[in-house]
Amino acid sequence: MKYGFAKRVNHMQSSAVRDILKVVNRGDVISFAGGLPDEKLFPVEEVRRAFDQALSADPKALQYGETEGVPALREKLSERMAEKGIKRESENILVTSGSQQAIDLFARVMFNPGDIILTENPTYLAALQVFQSYEVNIVPVDSDEDGMTKEDLETKIQQLKPKCIYIVPTYSNPDGKMWSLQRRKQLLRLAEKYHTIVFEDDPYGDIQFDESENVPPIASMDDNKYVVYTSTFSKTVVPAMRTGWITGPYQIIRMMAQAKQATDLHTNSLSQHALVKLMEEFDLDEHIRTLRQAYKERMLVMKGIFDQADDLEIRYTEPKGGMFFWVSMPDEVNTTTLLNEAVANGVAFVPGAPFYVNQPPQNTMRLNFTNAEPEMIEEGMKRLVDVMNHPSRFHNE
Amino acid sequence: MKYGFAKRVNHMQSSAVRDILKVVNRGDVISFAGGLPDEKLFPVEEVRRAFDQALSADPKALQYGETEGVPALREKLSERMAEKGIKRESENILVTSGSQQAIDLFARVMFNPGDIILTENPTYLAALQVFQSYEVNIVPVDSDEDGMTKEDLETKIQQLKPKCIYIVPTYSNPDGKMWSLQRRKQLLRLAEKYHTIVFEDDPYGDIQFDESENVPPIASMDDNKYVVYTSTFSKTVVPAMRTGWITGPYQIIRMMAQAKQATDLHTNSLSQHALVKLMEEFDLDEHIRTLRQAYKERMLVMKGIFDQADDLEIRYTEPKGGMFFWVSMPDEVNTTTLLNEAVANGVAFVPGAPFYVNQPPQNTMRLNFTNAEPEMIEEGMKRLVDVMNHPSRFHNE
Repeated sequence: MKYGFAKRVNHMQSSAVRDILKVVNRGDVISFAGGLPDEKLFPVEEVRRAFDQALSADPKALQYGETEGVPALREKLSERMAEKGIKRESENILVTSGSQQAIDLFARVMFNPGDIILTENPTYLAALQVFQSYEVNIVPVDSDEDGMTKEDLETKIQQLKPKCIYIVPTYSNPDGKMWSLQRRKQLLRLAEKYHTIVFEDDPYGDIQFDESENVPPIASMDDNKYVVYTSTFSKTVVPAMRTGWITGPYQIIRMMAQAKQATDLHTNSLSQHALVKLMEEFDLDEHIRTLRQAYKERMLVMKGIFDQADDLEIRYTEPKGGMFFWVSMPDEVNTTTLLNEAVANGVAFVPGAPFYVNQPPQNTMRLNFTNAEPEMIEEGMKRLVDVMNHPSRFHNE
Repeated sequence: MKYGFAKRVNHMQSSAVRDILKVVNRGDVISFAGGLPDEKLFPVEEVRRAFDQALSADPKALQYGETEGVPALREKLSERMAEKGIKRESENILVTSGSQQAIDLFARVMFNPGDIILTENPTYLAALQVFQSYEVNIVPVDSDEDGMTKEDLETKIQQLKPKCIYIVPTYSNPDGKMWSLQRRKQLLRLAEKYHTIVFEDDPYGDIQFDESENVPPIASMDDNKYVVYTSTFSKTVVPAMRTGWITGPYQIIRMMAQAKQATDLHTNSLSQHALVKLMEEFDLDEHIRTLRQAYKERMLVMKGIFDQADDLEIRYTEPKGGMFFWVSMPDEVNTTTLLNEAVANGVAFVPGAPFYVNQPPQNTMRLNFTNAEPEMIEEGMKRLVDVMNHPSRFHNE
């Protein structure tokens, strides 16, 4: 039987990253493809204890909960964000099933088909997928290494009257970019001037390699009027618990909570109670420092190998945090073609093309450095450089 | 600042049930309002052990997982459904964040604005909310105590060509109805004849009071062509884990998985791993028998008090399972008005009106009998009957 689907499914795409992940689950392939933290660094014992305590404390932790999230967790989130200068009361916080759901619920309550959203280019693939599924017109803004350029941003705001500007300004996925303080301020000033909402997606902000770096989130400079801010425990605690949050103007958060009610009633509240216990009993910041050190070391291993590969004609910038290394090969190289040979040689990455809004360049790649241990990174990078050393094999046809 | 929302928010309603629940969290009100299982019957110790084991087994249980769900859980679900005669391979199963998400994802991939869905009337409130948010036209079908009547169903299928028929045929929410075997077969035959999809929502099937009753799910009579079936662990294990599932034709399940990718990547996989351990180590069916007995006893307490209240002019049918008692008062009574005085007298319920598709009768109420212990039910029912004894106070104006 043929089933009649909604028109919106024509705008849904399966994630190229996840499809590749399925292929490279072969044990002999070293994968730099996913965006996975390293499970060997998970605080397993502490998580186990936290669940124990949550379950011992009160069987109500296992009952249906509030759509907005467990009150004690929202309080903790309010406190944690205040440490970063983001001052939002817990009533302005919605707990979500990962920050992916925050993006989806935001799109659901904000966008009509044909609405315009401005983004970086490249940007987070799964955000593009969400926006496309709501038939939003996605318009990329010119950027350099410091963030969106003021001129192009202002021109496009004036001309297109976008409903929202979506950005990942801190250690971005895919290109690891860190926006400068000046560009953050400029963006916020334009948002205020033209009454445009900024969606600040910040899953990687805690994974910061230089402890002295001190560029604040854009949300910290906003009086809870123009900036909606989302983050997650997926990178700092564990991904499996699917617990993220979003904060912003009460009207928007309230509307998103109403949408969430119909979507999944509420986020797994046992996990929320366990996270409260975890934050009470466990030095999460100390754990985050451990992660920063481990991931920085791995990034340096990856970078070191590229630095030594003198023959390779590539461009890259050292990431200052996050989970990804972004590499550009010569214009005529097609990294999707290259991926096939790389996998045959026992290493995987993600081609950069799917992270672009339109007419993607074919010569970029994203490498994750957080999942594999340093020796594996070294071995994987040898395999990769082997293949990259023959770029003429992978030219566009 | 005023924010411009999507047009679809005009079709979103906050759940009346959840709004009332907020009010009745006062400690002195005995609430029959929610749809909550009793947390004193939760298998807390077993859940604790299951998490312990899941966390000890493999730190990968804490890593990102597959959108479709943890493979071992999908296998277990396939086996459990087979015991009810529903034969579906695990590849035809999608694990969802509660069965609420199954309804939402189904609507997301199936419905265009203006599409028609046939439902019972009254029916599950939060399903109506989902359908409304996708701007679907909801058309109720005439029903009696055995289910939808064949004549009206066939007429409406012929005239309206609905995309789907949504039903809760087993111990329905809100009215506790149990469809007869004959009506189930008739519905399926019509679905086959007119190529219409049946969405069988079955959260309560396990809460069956008469062990000898043996009416099979409609999905068990279908060759995985016309029936999409969803259920959940929220009533039989615990709600907080937000783990449900849906099974149906592969094309539909595959499309829903693709939509889920953008929605929340995947359902909390730690909870999924814990559920696998729970089903391995714990006699879930024995636990379900305990629940059946406890809930049946409570239902009988509630019914007993109505049976004795000779002066009350009400109609009700003894529920054969599930969690709800459905009562009709004289036509001119308004149960929303009555609720105010009931709450003042220390007892709460849910007025039936929001469960209707359009032009709702105002004289019905839904009473939950699973959350409170028998003595509390007795006390709450006394308070309620006190108020109901003066129906003329609550006449429609």
